[in-house]
Amino acid sequence: MENERSSTAGKPIRCKAAVSRKPGEPLVIEEIMVAPPNPQEVRIRIICTSLCYSDITFWKMKDPPAIFPRILGHESIGVVESVGDDVDEFREGDYVIPVFLSDCGDCTDCTSKKSNLCSKFPFQVSPWMPRDGTSRFTDLKGEVLYHFLSVSSFSEFTVVDTANLVKVDPSIPPNRACLLSCGVATGVGAAWKTASVEAGSTVVIFGLGAIGLAVAEGARLCGATRIIGVDINPEKFEIGKKFGITDFVSAKECGSTPVSQVINEMTGGGADYCFECVGLASLVHEAYACCRKGWGKTVVLGVDKPGSQLSFSSFEVLHTGKMLMGSLYGGLKPKYDVPVLLKQYMSKELHLDNFVTHELKFEDINKAFDLLIQGKCLRTVIWMASEKVPPM
Amino acid sequence: MENERSSTAGKPIRCKAAVSRKPGEPLVIEEIMVAPPNPQEVRIRIICTSLCYSDITFWKMKDPPAIFPRILGHESIGVVESVGDDVDEFREGDYVIPVFLSDCGDCTDCTSKKSNLCSKFPFQVSPWMPRDGTSRFTDLKGEVLYHFLSVSSFSEFTVVDTANLVKVDPSIPPNRACLLSCGVATGVGAAWKTASVEAGSTVVIFGLGAIGLAVAEGARLCGATRIIGVDINPEKFEIGKKFGITDFVSAKECGSTPVSQVINEMTGGGADYCFECVGLASLVHEAYACCRKGWGKTVVLGVDKPGSQLSFSSFEVLHTGKMLMGSLYGGLKPKYDVPVLLKQYMSKELHLDNFVTHELKFEDINKAFDLLIQGKCLRTVIWMASEKVPPM
Ligand SMILES: [Zn+2]
Ligand SMILES: [Zn+2]
Ligand SMILES: [Zn+2]
Ligand SMILES: [Zn+2]
Repeated sequence: MENERSSTAGKPIRCKAAVSRKPGEPLVIEEIMVAPPNPQEVRIRIICTSLCYSDITFWKMKDPPAIFPRILGHESIGVVESVGDDVDEFREGDYVIPVFLSDCGDCTDCTSKKSNLCSKFPFQVSPWMPRDGTSRFTDLKGEVLYHFLSVSSFSEFTVVDTANLVKVDPSIPPNRACLLSCGVATGVGAAWKTASVEAGSTVVIFGLGAIGLAVAEGARLCGATRIIGVDINPEKFEIGKKFGITDFVSAKECGSTPVSQVINEMTGGGADYCFECVGLASLVHEAYACCRKGWGKTVVLGVDKPGSQLSFSSFEVLHTGKMLMGSLYGGLKPKYDVPVLLKQYMSKELHLDNFVTHELKFEDINKAFDLLIQGKCLRTVIWMASEKVPPM
Repeated sequence: MENERSSTAGKPIRCKAAVSRKPGEPLVIEEIMVAPPNPQEVRIRIICTSLCYSDITFWKMKDPPAIFPRILGHESIGVVESVGDDVDEFREGDYVIPVFLSDCGDCTDCTSKKSNLCSKFPFQVSPWMPRDGTSRFTDLKGEVLYHFLSVSSFSEFTVVDTANLVKVDPSIPPNRACLLSCGVATGVGAAWKTASVEAGSTVVIFGLGAIGLAVAEGARLCGATRIIGVDINPEKFEIGKKFGITDFVSAKECGSTPVSQVINEMTGGGADYCFECVGLASLVHEAYACCRKGWGKTVVLGVDKPGSQLSFSSFEVLHTGKMLMGSLYGGLKPKYDVPVLLKQYMSKELHLDNFVTHELKFEDINKAFDLLIQGKCLRTVIWMASEKVPPM
């Protein structure tokens, strides 16, 4: 492998990628060309990748910001194959986790402990590399293939900006580490960093998908003693127990009673923290309505359809002393907080194993889409062809 | 006075009050009867009172929750004349500040450090005493006069629940202490307690009335280095300088440029804290739009007309990491925090003197209404007839 790496450095690499060519149609596994990294970029060989709901959103979407042909995928872990000029932070052979949120290390936000929203490379769903606005991918006909979320991990090789890479300990199991690229980290971080959940507190989670369950895991880690899960699918409740959910509210069984009222009664006046993980404006209102007056925090983790509005009565905002906040990537600063979470995984404080419900070979990547769309998985890890899928 | 107090205890007191008999019409100074305090109530002789904008709101208002005849007034300081049964906390001769927000000392909120929103006596604009829902006031024809905000300080004597009284050091000048009953405490507390303004930070204040200027004073006390005031009246800018305002934005002179854009440019991306002190939903949006992504806090101190809504795009809430919070009575816990603020006044850390722009005799109370309506004063202190108006 050492030889292979050095022999490819500076040259284009021909490899397999799963290309999204038309909205909603199965990805096509085909050979593509991956250009060498530009300055401050790194080319990495993906070890494994997992599927997040945002991949599906941009795969199904017909209008901009969707764009085709595109290489989706943004949860992954890989090994540095080669580095571009002006790269000191990474070298060939380093294990790295790409993260869609940039951490330039330079700007007011990246140098502040309080923000994870880089000002130099603000978050956007761009089809290009962040630094120079071009692509590193072409198909064998020479047509440009677009990037996705600065990662594009559904390819054996990809190029990622140094601002979007976190160096990690190579001894960490890749099929756990990749979860921290997006969804699971977002949930855990929302409880830990955004809300700073206090020990002994009560938490409500709207939506028990992978992100909601990751909030539960983060809340458990922070010492929350009561973690109430809300979902329309009662099957989620059995799964939730594995993640520390202590109480369940079946939204369907509430009938005409608002869920917030049920929760206000269960908790004697509201929960200390409410997390909205479905992405419905109406649920943000329910969450706000059942967080505790005086100190309750409502954390928004998802976005409704474009243009959707969250509306609150000004009387309620003034008279209830509640707090409303959004959480992008769980408020985590990628380069600082991902290594902390991985350490917590290795010391068995942070439980990640239960999030991986399926593992597939790269050639079966379209099955991962079916599993997630049908709600049958939490996370499906997809192993690249160069790797052996371990027994689960 | 000692003899007088003991001679009146347990009996009705006949005294003068300024009664609001019809919406928007001058208060009528007339003799009324003040019943002795019920259990857990205290009858106090008002020393001085000041006029807050909420008095004007409920004086002008024609429909419920407005009600007439009523004794308005809720910023004041007084001396305990007599106490009802089951009162241990206060005794005759104690100096006390009535506060519209209750602090029962018993409920989950009052025993928590995190909330100032008593659950036993939730804030409401009721015409009655909080504990038993009756009035202690009648006119000389025997007609009931309604209470206001659990205080009704536009009377020589009033009855206040122990949950709404704070005992204070008698050496504190009454014409400063009374300011901490409502508006000025609300502004100072919003910066200190609700937002926890950090040293070195930048603050924007929308509306430079007494509350906005009190926010400036609180922010200055917390060590804010840049305090930007926004008002439509450029005269407020000269006044603002006395309260630590360092920069001014004349909302009228912004023309078609949104104020938030002007502030974002001035601050290179937004302020650390934005306070909306006018009570306009549209200004809450401006405030939210110019608080710093990543960590900015927008604090709502006023309420627009009943039913007004605050609406935010869910995308903005999720992607900017900003915080929205309301602040009732500045997040202060009356019995704990008012004595702290008074100590800070006595040690010359907290500046209150400049808030008192006018002092009047009780018989001239209607002039205080004119001054506030015309925007000519910050606070007018009204001295009861038993007191001598000191030279300013
Ligand atoms: Zn940055
Ligand atoms: Zn994702
Ligand atoms: Zn209470
Ligand atoms: Zn007031």
